[in-house]
Amino acid sequence: MLAIHLQNGVISARKQARPRRREKFASIRLLYGGICNTDLELQRGYYGFEGTPGHEFVGEVIESDDPTWIGQRVVGEINIACEHCEWCARGFGRHCPQRKVLGIVNYPGAFREILTLPERNLHRVPKEISTQHAVFVEPLAAACEILDQVRIPKGDRVAVLGDGKLGLLIGQVLHATGLEVHQYGRHQEKLRIAAGARIDTELSKKAPIAAYEWVVDATGSPEGLKQAVQMTRPRGTVIMKSTVHGLVGIDTAPVIVNELTLVGSRCGRFEPALKLLRSGKIRLDGLISEVIPLREAASAFERAGQSGVLKVLLQS
Amino acid sequence: MLAIHLQNGVISARKQARPRRREKFASIRLLYGGICNTDLELQRGYYGFEGTPGHEFVGEVIESDDPTWIGQRVVGEINIACEHCEWCARGFGRHCPQRKVLGIVNYPGAFREILTLPERNLHRVPKEISTQHAVFVEPLAAACEILDQVRIPKGDRVAVLGDGKLGLLIGQVLHATGLEVHQYGRHQEKLRIAAGARIDTELSKKAPIAAYEWVVDATGSPEGLKQAVQMTRPRGTVIMKSTVHGLVGIDTAPVIVNELTLVGSRCGRFEPALKLLRSGKIRLDGLISEVIPLREAASAFERAGQSGVLKVLLQS
Repeated sequence: MLAIHLQNGVISARKQARPRRREKFASIRLLYGGICNTDLELQRGYYGFEGTPGHEFVGEVIESDDPTWIGQRVVGEINIACEHCEWCARGFGRHCPQRKVLGIVNYPGAFREILTLPERNLHRVPKEISTQHAVFVEPLAAACEILDQVRIPKGDRVAVLGDGKLGLLIGQVLHATGLEVHQYGRHQEKLRIAAGARIDTELSKKAPIAAYEWVVDATGSPEGLKQAVQMTRPRGTVIMKSTVHGLVGIDTAPVIVNELTLVGSRCGRFEPALKLLRSGKIRLDGLISEVIPLREAASAFERAGQSGVLKVLLQS
Repeated sequence: MLAIHLQNGVISARKQARPRRREKFASIRLLYGGICNTDLELQRGYYGFEGTPGHEFVGEVIESDDPTWIGQRVVGEINIACEHCEWCARGFGRHCPQRKVLGIVNYPGAFREILTLPERNLHRVPKEISTQHAVFVEPLAAACEILDQVRIPKGDRVAVLGDGKLGLLIGQVLHATGLEVHQYGRHQEKLRIAAGARIDTELSKKAPIAAYEWVVDATGSPEGLKQAVQMTRPRGTVIMKSTVHGLVGIDTAPVIVNELTLVGSRCGRFEPALKLLRSGKIRLDGLISEVIPLREAASAFERAGQSGVLKVLLQS
């Protein structure tokens, strides 16, 4: 079968043996994979990753211990937890210290014709959700995670910094849950997607100081956190969604003087993301820039890294 | 009267006119002032401050619109709020954007024989509290502020990083409210003060990784936040008490991956601090390193900045 391989920053397509399915695992035929910024960072050397990348996917189960899975369209949670530790017992397998992470930590990813995942990680894709849109369940879950972490009163104003893939999803998720979202970005054409979802948009350079109780930094840049801190009112909350490689220099004085709360936020549960996507409240068409065959992953990665490009899908 | 003056890093004692008392303000004769790390930072050029420093004090009211204040021993909240804005209306004068701050922002401080403050800022010192101990009400209020910001379940383990004045007060405040405090520091002789208050102590270099749900950084150093982040378990909370001048380089990746919450924390209400001090649960004697006359403030500042020295009091 075909599998994408990443080594020393180079993406290649290789022939390799089909993975062996372990007990309680399912074998899944890939339908589409999505290239995420984390994949581009892995390519740049982040985490010292070598192997098959990919953690956003939709596929069809072809083998499983439980026959009811066979033939189902599925998406899968990316953390493969140990199931034995205190964190797993508390239902926080996403923080299990022994966890492997699909296509990121010690586990080959989704960019291969057939992948395996524990059956407990799988979720059926409801018929209302198109196969291409199902690829967005994983990043949408990361957007929904914010709502699991902080309680934002209905109708409150929230600033979302960043008009990349994750920023645009976060804007829509918060908007769909009844918040007044102001999306800040640097690209008029990307902000237009947010505006199409009836979200107020503004260029980042016009961002006001100390104006919001809630600010989400999804810029993906070290400057984002600094700006988010500046935009937040005393006693307000900054949600940190930008994973940045290396040290970020922040002026902690305004955080302390204004008694801000900064909340780190990562992956989320799939259930709310599936529910939201099924509701039809999230517009995804403008977010897909291109669909490229799996065997051309090298050029797909190149494309995904270009300015102005949003989600690039790999089709198997 | 005598007033201490700070200009270009130089502390001097000057003769100056008694301050005029405005309506709703009280004139207070200084009894003791306390030199805080913030005062030492003002001396280093922080905030571009010039004038009379000092915000920790106990004094006796000598003039007031309300005669019941006359002759009372008082301490005073340091934020002089506008009383007209939205923040003041919400009871958060400490965050009023127009506020002045005693001895820090646009208002002459407490290191002078007679100072003035709004009557609404004053609190009577109960007879159970000695005059020297009353100087600690302001920093104790800053320590108590943590309990106003986060709810730490009774009996939980909390790591307090830093064995300076504020760190030692925070350790005692958290211990007194029924938490299991582990105080980390670099100085055996300072940690002995915490140990004397029956707090577990440990050298910072022995601090464990990902071990605490709650970590307070009161080191006053840029390294403190980094270590606090490392010591915190996934989904745990870091309380930021170290005001550091300039940029602090932090690795935001573990904050996001472990979904930590960072809470900036500054001044607090005086009521809980007075209550705690009155209860006798806080041991302060070991914290006073020296008592020096107000006119010798220059050498008192020098002494306060020396390694191993804790609180230096100025006596008027």
